[in-house]
Amino acid sequence: MKSYFEDMPVIKYEGPDSKNPFSYKYYDAERVIKGKKMKEHLKFAMSYWHTMCAGGADPFGGVTMDRSYGETEPMAIAKAKADAAFTFMSKMGIEYFCFHDVDIAPEGTNFEETRNNFHEMVAYIEGKMKETGIKLLWGTANCFSHPRYMHGAGTACHADSFAYAASQIKNALDATIRLGGQGYVFWGGREGYETLLNTDMGFELDNMARLMHMAVAYGRNHGFTGDFYIEPKPKEPMKHQYDFDTATVLAFLRKYGLDKDFKVNIEANHATLAGHTFEHELAVARINDVFGSIDANQGDPHLGWDTDQFPTDVQSATLCMLEVIKAGGFTKGGLNFDAKVRRPSFDFEDIVYAYISGMDTFALGLIKAYEILEDGRIENFVTKRYESYTYGIGKEIVEDRATLESLEAYILEKGETKVESGRQELLESIFNTILFK
Amino acid sequence: MKSYFEDMPVIKYEGPDSKNPFSYKYYDAERVIKGKKMKEHLKFAMSYWHTMCAGGADPFGGVTMDRSYGETEPMAIAKAKADAAFTFMSKMGIEYFCFHDVDIAPEGTNFEETRNNFHEMVAYIEGKMKETGIKLLWGTANCFSHPRYMHGAGTACHADSFAYAASQIKNALDATIRLGGQGYVFWGGREGYETLLNTDMGFELDNMARLMHMAVAYGRNHGFTGDFYIEPKPKEPMKHQYDFDTATVLAFLRKYGLDKDFKVNIEANHATLAGHTFEHELAVARINDVFGSIDANQGDPHLGWDTDQFPTDVQSATLCMLEVIKAGGFTKGGLNFDAKVRRPSFDFEDIVYAYISGMDTFALGLIKAYEILEDGRIENFVTKRYESYTYGIGKEIVEDRATLESLEAYILEKGETKVESGRQELLESIFNTILFK
Amino acid sequence: MKSYFEDMPVIKYEGPDSKNPFSYKYYDAERVIKGKKMKEHLKFAMSYWHTMCAGGADPFGGVTMDRSYGETEPMAIAKAKADAAFTFMSKMGIEYFCFHDVDIAPEGTNFEETRNNFHEMVAYIEGKMKETGIKLLWGTANCFSHPRYMHGAGTACHADSFAYAASQIKNALDATIRLGGQGYVFWGGREGYETLLNTDMGFELDNMARLMHMAVAYGRNHGFTGDFYIEPKPKEPMKHQYDFDTATVLAFLRKYGLDKDFKVNIEANHATLAGHTFEHELAVARINDVFGSIDANQGDPHLGWDTDQFPTDVQSATLCMLEVIKAGGFTKGGLNFDAKVRRPSFDFEDIVYAYISGMDTFALGLIKAYEILEDGRIENFVTKRYESYTYGIGKEIVEDRATLESLEAYILEKGETKVESGRQELLESIFNTILFK
Amino acid sequence: MKSYFEDMPVIKYEGPDSKNPFSYKYYDAERVIKGKKMKEHLKFAMSYWHTMCAGGADPFGGVTMDRSYGETEPMAIAKAKADAAFTFMSKMGIEYFCFHDVDIAPEGTNFEETRNNFHEMVAYIEGKMKETGIKLLWGTANCFSHPRYMHGAGTACHADSFAYAASQIKNALDATIRLGGQGYVFWGGREGYETLLNTDMGFELDNMARLMHMAVAYGRNHGFTGDFYIEPKPKEPMKHQYDFDTATVLAFLRKYGLDKDFKVNIEANHATLAGHTFEHELAVARINDVFGSIDANQGDPHLGWDTDQFPTDVQSATLCMLEVIKAGGFTKGGLNFDAKVRRPSFDFEDIVYAYISGMDTFALGLIKAYEILEDGRIENFVTKRYESYTYGIGKEIVEDRATLESLEAYILEKGETKVESGRQELLESIFNTILFK
Ligand SMILES: [Co+2]
Ligand SMILES: [Co+2]
Ligand SMILES: [Co+2]
Ligand SMILES: [Co+2]
Ligand SMILES: [Co+2]
Ligand SMILES: [Co+2]
Ligand SMILES: [Co+2]
Ligand SMILES: [Co+2]
Repeated sequence: MKSYFEDMPVIKYEGPDSKNPFSYKYYDAERVIKGKKMKEHLKFAMSYWHTMCAGGADPFGGVTMDRSYGETEPMAIAKAKADAAFTFMSKMGIEYFCFHDVDIAPEGTNFEETRNNFHEMVAYIEGKMKETGIKLLWGTANCFSHPRYMHGAGTACHADSFAYAASQIKNALDATIRLGGQGYVFWGGREGYETLLNTDMGFELDNMARLMHMAVAYGRNHGFTGDFYIEPKPKEPMKHQYDFDTATVLAFLRKYGLDKDFKVNIEANHATLAGHTFEHELAVARINDVFGSIDANQGDPHLGWDTDQFPTDVQSATLCMLEVIKAGGFTKGGLNFDAKVRRPSFDFEDIVYAYISGMDTFALGLIKAYEILEDGRIENFVTKRYESYTYGIGKEIVEDRATLESLEAYILEKGETKVESGRQELLESIFNTILFK
Repeated sequence: MKSYFEDMPVIKYEGPDSKNPFSYKYYDAERVIKGKKMKEHLKFAMSYWHTMCAGGADPFGGVTMDRSYGETEPMAIAKAKADAAFTFMSKMGIEYFCFHDVDIAPEGTNFEETRNNFHEMVAYIEGKMKETGIKLLWGTANCFSHPRYMHGAGTACHADSFAYAASQIKNALDATIRLGGQGYVFWGGREGYETLLNTDMGFELDNMARLMHMAVAYGRNHGFTGDFYIEPKPKEPMKHQYDFDTATVLAFLRKYGLDKDFKVNIEANHATLAGHTFEHELAVARINDVFGSIDANQGDPHLGWDTDQFPTDVQSATLCMLEVIKAGGFTKGGLNFDAKVRRPSFDFEDIVYAYISGMDTFALGLIKAYEILEDGRIENFVTKRYESYTYGIGKEIVEDRATLESLEAYILEKGETKVESGRQELLESIFNTILFK
Repeated sequence: MKSYFEDMPVIKYEGPDSKNPFSYKYYDAERVIKGKKMKEHLKFAMSYWHTMCAGGADPFGGVTMDRSYGETEPMAIAKAKADAAFTFMSKMGIEYFCFHDVDIAPEGTNFEETRNNFHEMVAYIEGKMKETGIKLLWGTANCFSHPRYMHGAGTACHADSFAYAASQIKNALDATIRLGGQGYVFWGGREGYETLLNTDMGFELDNMARLMHMAVAYGRNHGFTGDFYIEPKPKEPMKHQYDFDTATVLAFLRKYGLDKDFKVNIEANHATLAGHTFEHELAVARINDVFGSIDANQGDPHLGWDTDQFPTDVQSATLCMLEVIKAGGFTKGGLNFDAKVRRPSFDFEDIVYAYISGMDTFALGLIKAYEILEDGRIENFVTKRYESYTYGIGKEIVEDRATLESLEAYILEKGETKVESGRQELLESIFNTILFK
Repeated sequence: MKSYFEDMPVIKYEGPDSKNPFSYKYYDAERVIKGKKMKEHLKFAMSYWHTMCAGGADPFGGVTMDRSYGETEPMAIAKAKADAAFTFMSKMGIEYFCFHDVDIAPEGTNFEETRNNFHEMVAYIEGKMKETGIKLLWGTANCFSHPRYMHGAGTACHADSFAYAASQIKNALDATIRLGGQGYVFWGGREGYETLLNTDMGFELDNMARLMHMAVAYGRNHGFTGDFYIEPKPKEPMKHQYDFDTATVLAFLRKYGLDKDFKVNIEANHATLAGHTFEHELAVARINDVFGSIDANQGDPHLGWDTDQFPTDVQSATLCMLEVIKAGGFTKGGLNFDAKVRRPSFDFEDIVYAYISGMDTFALGLIKAYEILEDGRIENFVTKRYESYTYGIGKEIVEDRATLESLEAYILEKGETKVESGRQELLESIFNTILFK
């Protein structure tokens, strides 16, 4: 049977005046900005799970989308799905993808069978990658959906769940290495707690670190030179998840000596659920040298759960790209749409519209970020704002030559200090003018 | 003029059947629980600022409470206020207090005058302490209210603000040492940002660490053997505050090598504003060995700002005291009511009712926490829940003898794993039965 | 095959000292309070859906609970489920239940078959009711789970979805009438919008009113003398649901002339998701004469979705029961646990623990509410607080004899007014003392 | 002394390429769109309180802005402030203003004196209006800041507070009428409760309605032909405010027969605090015929209080203007910036930047809203989406000829229904393309 995306047109850049819904209005893959093509700046990746597997069910209703790709037998579905995925990416001009083990292959009746299915599909996907030139951004293991992980994986109260997770991770790492992935993600969907009444948090976190150390040891021994990522999320599905936000992850990595091998995969919607802006999380990662990769979805400020919407907020995308540029751009990471279409957007073409919308949003974000930097007014303001630390008492402070006593002496002499306006409204006005020019 | 609290009765324990509003129903200071008096378990402290200084203004209305204590001249007010404070504590049976520099003495026309006022009042308070036997829990400097700190203190964009803060901190530390305080608190009310558009977060955090290192150096050189505390708060007054929560503080302390000297002062209302439960923050502090002191107020789950209400939630107080007990009880820290009466509760007697309410709440929390531990059902359940890590593959994991390969081999042999119910509803039922017995 | 609840013990009142998890600690069905048995005050009802059907799936994981009751064929499952439900209720001493059409019978291959399945099961359940004496609290139709309702039912953009919903409602009403239910609920799970970009809100609300008018006409013509209820909920599954809260429902009912036939079914967790306390919603219903029935679950103040937890918060239950008592107690309505056990609480006995926990919570709430009323201090304070409206200018105001002019004349003469403290802290202290006595 | 705004330049439209911070980039007052000038479409108004009076204090810090306008005596300050206000508006090209009684004149030592001060300033402002041609959009009385209103004004527990509020309202209405204002606003800053434990909500709401009936009677008798407005807000300063949102206000107006005379003044930040989008509140007002006027500020999605920021969100402004256009545009109402500069933006020029930023934002919103309507794709999609209600069974439904029986008969014949995709992602893509073109 024909892949569902066979009939879809190739999506090309046609510019903002085009009314063709099957075209990019802002994303022009080959356009060069500051010496690099847009597609190299952005490194867009397809999320296998939401794009190829999600059926539109929610806590109050069943699936609205058929994702069997015209097949009925599990392995046949898996292959048809892979065919569809690579056709979709090729037509969209998306050059990377990422996946969980369970996205690409069906579970068997026991672990051995599951593992065989998985590696058969890894080989199949390897073939598709060679055919199309599409690359793997990162791999991961889904250690949260199966009931065996209801109490956690690395933080499970029972050692067998831990062991099972380790087994999945080993194979997902093998696949990532084989497929040339430069990243491996830990998203701790069940690593957290429902209630402290039944939980030993200290013990669980020690174990989580143990699992990560095992993964690093295994990966490094088997030639994995990519980055390990933790993807922070504050809550959902658990009441409290251990990887609440980037700062929490930093505290954890530093405690357990994992900061050499791990970076963060920042998801926009997880940032906002934690009470932060997307750009805040990126800035925290940048100044702590753990900026890695991005899940570029969007939440709804009025909804308290992970809506994982395709990004449409150009202001947010611009602030994001400003951080990415300041961090030196993507190296091993990229920009993955960990995003799903709404339940009532059940047609396959809705996925196409959604990716166009998301990619145009980040294309605009990239363009605008560089315009802001080129304009210079905002950056110059910031530099000037901290100028007093480049001489006199300020210089002494940053060179660690000041003490409480020397500073008191300074103030006794100097007297009251005069501060200047933060000019936030002016900066917002400049930002907006560039955004809409 | 007579202190406002001269006429208030001494507050004594009369038990839950008393209808005398001026009596404790549950707090019985001398009652011994597990070999320690209730007052030693709880170490209640008065917050000088909210209790003695706050006037009831809010963003939409002016002061409703006169806190001039019958005087008009600033230093006379300060002394009358101190008289009132110590009378109040004596009658309440509260043995500790804590304060900011600006709570106890008026600002002068320049820093020297301010400093003189401050030290005159420190001496005056030293006298009151000797008279009454009341002790200082901790001291701090208010580096957030004055306009000079609008952009921060340690994280200010201008070096002069930094220097001024250092000067205040030096004197507040001197006072803390002189008054025998065993704690010194940093609450970073303006250490954060309003917008990233005008902020260099990395630079600001480096400076914040510099200020703390200076304080540690000065304190240790001048005989301060107490704990330094950071009090986490996620937002307000700033859009984002750098000390978001305990985990964020841990990441910071570890990065800058401050983890030896610093612990956390956890405020209940700040915990909930960060999206955590109070007990979560305490547990994070405990398992990371930074549990220090507590600001025991309460927020409103439907309001998004720091209401700093007197605690009335006995369930929360019980979960808090369970953590305190597990952490070994208070050593240098204590339990301070960083809480204020509502704006329309403007009578002085409302403060008395509020403290009684808060102290009874934590007395109940203490009693119930020990009943739960004595009962044993909950703790035993937790121990049993992790039993599989005490033998076999679980033991190998916690002894760091397992690898991804060995665990895969185990699963290939073992097959699917069976997990057990988390029994959350049963545990909640047991908890509640004990709470209301 | 034996029903899963055959082996469970009969749950009896054993008092708070019992450590038997299969006993009530506070709920003593036959205990008489103010001339009425506890079971008459509380009118507990079982929710068929969560209790009998829910499998524990969440957006990040599959089912953990088997709810096939040992059968494989749909109608056999439905009957075994009914058997289990009535056994469960009998052993718990729960005298009411409520259900959606789809809870009790499987969908067929077309509407006629579905309808036949449904009525066959209605007859079956009628038999169980006669056998056990258990009564129907209310019925409803599930017009939100099936994909045909993805855009709404009464507010669907396509008339066929509206027609289908009408058909389901007709049959659910027939069943409710046949089974003697005194209530019929509308919960508008998909009555709302995802985005205003594709929505005509005015048109949709007109249609929603049309559907309700049809239901009223049909019900009244077919002998239904019970109450129609709207169950407010602010959001989830939709971004915005039309029945946001009780006030929104009141505006709607008044606009469309539905206020004679409709009351509200207030769910605690929906109240809190709307930014209200549970007791607020009850009070709004009470003072507007639309208090009807209650879904007595509990949310998590730190989670932004409908957790539908079994209630454990005795303070909230007490404030709820105070409102119920002030409203004159339940007449046609009752107290239904629209609550589910947590995903990792997958054993059938967890349901038993959960109901015990919830019923004990509301038993305590009932007892404490009456103790507060008997104590009288809080109610007397309120009465006295408004005293100034019983004479003089206050009396003129409430008797509609005052005007802006007469009031200005009064103030010109009277001068500044003196208000009194609201005494919130004292009232909270009294409340808590009674709660924990 | 010279008014602070004497030296500020006249702000003119210079287009998006201008780097002059003292110029409009998008707001071109005289530009004609659809036969109306931009300034007529938008009817911008200055908020006297935030713009002329607010000092930058917050709950954790004192004032940063001097608003004494070079004077020391209260009435002199008031006049200098008025001078500054009219200079500011003239230079900005703002043609409307709005005010509370206490914004424009100082309180005296008794009500008579206060009233005299007020009317003296009303006369003074009348002169400025004649001089400049600037008009009054609406007036109001501040019945929330003074301690006498700590328990409410119309909903106060003491009749004297009610009477005082009535007196203020009478005079504010007199002033509004004299100055030709076409609106009078009720914002119930203290009309709500802190705790139900001390509150009789039903009684308080009856009184609130009484006060509004008195105001309507007085206004209509004294020639006021404008609109009365309620400005909804969910919480803050009170825990719960009675005018939670537009739907709540509708329920209230309909209950008390006030719906003929009252419309709503919708504030963007209050909408979002209530859990709604700004456009949602506008749409609710529109379809219920109570759309009146707008307070066009902006909140921060991560902060839980009323930040009242100047609007910068062009997407939100566009969705707002779409609703305004659908509602027929402003008639008696207008668009007021109930917004304040941030505390660290203390210079007078920051106010200028802020207004420019806000006015450009809404200018863009207006332009984009018309572009979307002209484009037609979104509106056409919506029309087509509901097409099935224009014939057949759909037509029967909207013409009230269908019944549950007739609809069941239809479904029995028709069978399962097929719904179509909601196309949200496509619509968002179209919206964004137009926004950034
Ligand atoms: Co997500
Ligand atoms: Co993600
Ligand atoms: Co606080
Ligand atoms: Co505090
Ligand atoms: Co619910
Ligand atoms: Co419900
Ligand atoms: Co506001
Ligand atoms: Co406003």
